[in-house]
Amino acid sequence: MASRSPRLLSLARRAFSSASSQANRVSLVQGASRGIGLEFVKQLLENNDKGHVVATCRNPNSSTGLLHLKDRFDDRLQILPLDLTVESSVQASALSIKETYGHLNLLINASGILSIPKVLQPETTLNKLEKSSLMLAYEVNAVGPILVIKHMWPLLKAGGGIGTERSGAVVASLSARVASIGDNRIGGWHSYRSSKTALNQLSKNVALEFARKKDPIICILLHPGTVDTDLSKPFQKNVPKEKLFSKEFSVQKLLHIINNVKSQDNGKFFAWDGQEIPW
Amino acid sequence: MASRSPRLLSLARRAFSSASSQANRVSLVQGASRGIGLEFVKQLLENNDKGHVVATCRNPNSSTGLLHLKDRFDDRLQILPLDLTVESSVQASALSIKETYGHLNLLINASGILSIPKVLQPETTLNKLEKSSLMLAYEVNAVGPILVIKHMWPLLKAGGGIGTERSGAVVASLSARVASIGDNRIGGWHSYRSSKTALNQLSKNVALEFARKKDPIICILLHPGTVDTDLSKPFQKNVPKEKLFSKEFSVQKLLHIINNVKSQDNGKFFAWDGQEIPW
Repeated sequence: MASRSPRLLSLARRAFSSASSQANRVSLVQGASRGIGLEFVKQLLENNDKGHVVATCRNPNSSTGLLHLKDRFDDRLQILPLDLTVESSVQASALSIKETYGHLNLLINASGILSIPKVLQPETTLNKLEKSSLMLAYEVNAVGPILVIKHMWPLLKAGGGIGTERSGAVVASLSARVASIGDNRIGGWHSYRSSKTALNQLSKNVALEFARKKDPIICILLHPGTVDTDLSKPFQKNVPKEKLFSKEFSVQKLLHIINNVKSQDNGKFFAWDGQEIPW
Repeated sequence: MASRSPRLLSLARRAFSSASSQANRVSLVQGASRGIGLEFVKQLLENNDKGHVVATCRNPNSSTGLLHLKDRFDDRLQILPLDLTVESSVQASALSIKETYGHLNLLINASGILSIPKVLQPETTLNKLEKSSLMLAYEVNAVGPILVIKHMWPLLKAGGGIGTERSGAVVASLSARVASIGDNRIGGWHSYRSSKTALNQLSKNVALEFARKKDPIICILLHPGTVDTDLSKPFQKNVPKEKLFSKEFSVQKLLHIINNVKSQDNGKFFAWDGQEIPW
């Protein structure tokens, strides 16, 4: 018995330590009110029985999806207002996360705009290009996510891979296959495409700086496929049924990539199936 | 004599037709007040003894370089004010060119900003990213040139390769090697890089539409090398002497590419030496 007692103690300690470090796992989903972002929040909460999730969006009170999750996971879900077109709002969220948790292990940039009735329409021809659309798409799809990374950087550095099986914190930003210049065969969607292409470049820049400074952060870009969400709704009629993914399927695939990412993946651009997409 | 007379007449006609069609050659250099743009205007005027050049910049009266060329080439150089951040100004220039010449054979987008004291600084770290810098660089380096292409499109379509040895009109936009995501090894310069990367995507989009509509227009992107201009001045100290090109040398090389471009080059991104640059 004398010989077993320390072993049991050690096992108990390990179990406790693992549970407590998992409880320290903090994930931030930016753009979480609906669609892919909301599904990320849901799966992150359901897949881990410890670990905290911070969900941000412009108007938390108008997201019934988030409020429903808050009912189910009150103690592990925090909802914060964040408008990524206002840098002080991004800063305020970072400060709040710092005070509550002190670190982050995962940041998912899930926000994105493609069409807004009477404001932004995916262009079918150069003739329809509007300066205001180009500027708006860039502000929301490229500048916003990078400002979020800028302000969450110290928290990600503090968090690294602690409490996860990953070798570092992960920043995963939702890009899109249409952001690829090399893969561009049909043109169109100028505002959306060029904003996501710029996001790719900015994300690559950030990845290079993280690597140079040996920060424990892996920064990747993800193409979720064509997913049945409000964003894709107006454009689904030409999508073959088997290529229109459910949110559940796409987010499962993307979380698989995120959870298995290696440091050598830093700066890369992956499709939902793990294939690299050319720039 | 009876047999030679028609031949002489035909030769004379051909010479006249060639001279008159060369005289119909109209090139537009946008961003022509100084640096590479001004050098394009100079070489276009000096290399052809016919052919017209339209040079645009924000404040023509403050460009001594352009005013000097106007003294030398009064009848073949037209200078127009164009502020590419104001779409109505781009439209006004297009209307003026339409009324004077009716067409264009070449559009060179030479404008670009990298640093403006107290306004825009090439970022050395993510910490220094400012939303205002990202937005300004995008407006000037990506949106502006595409709006110019949008409004000059009908004139380029009307002009095609007529009066030149080229198979179509050419749109050449100045990009930069740092716009390449695949070739990005050191990061930094976020605002400039991402704006030029977006310009690459927008230009590819435009090239695809020209091809689909069978418009006689070839749209390319050019990297001029590091050229001794005001733009590169603050960053020349780390550039080896043999890699810092004179404006004269770089523009000679770029005009060689422009003058020898083929329809299969539509949508491509070339360095000064003719090598393709990865996206």
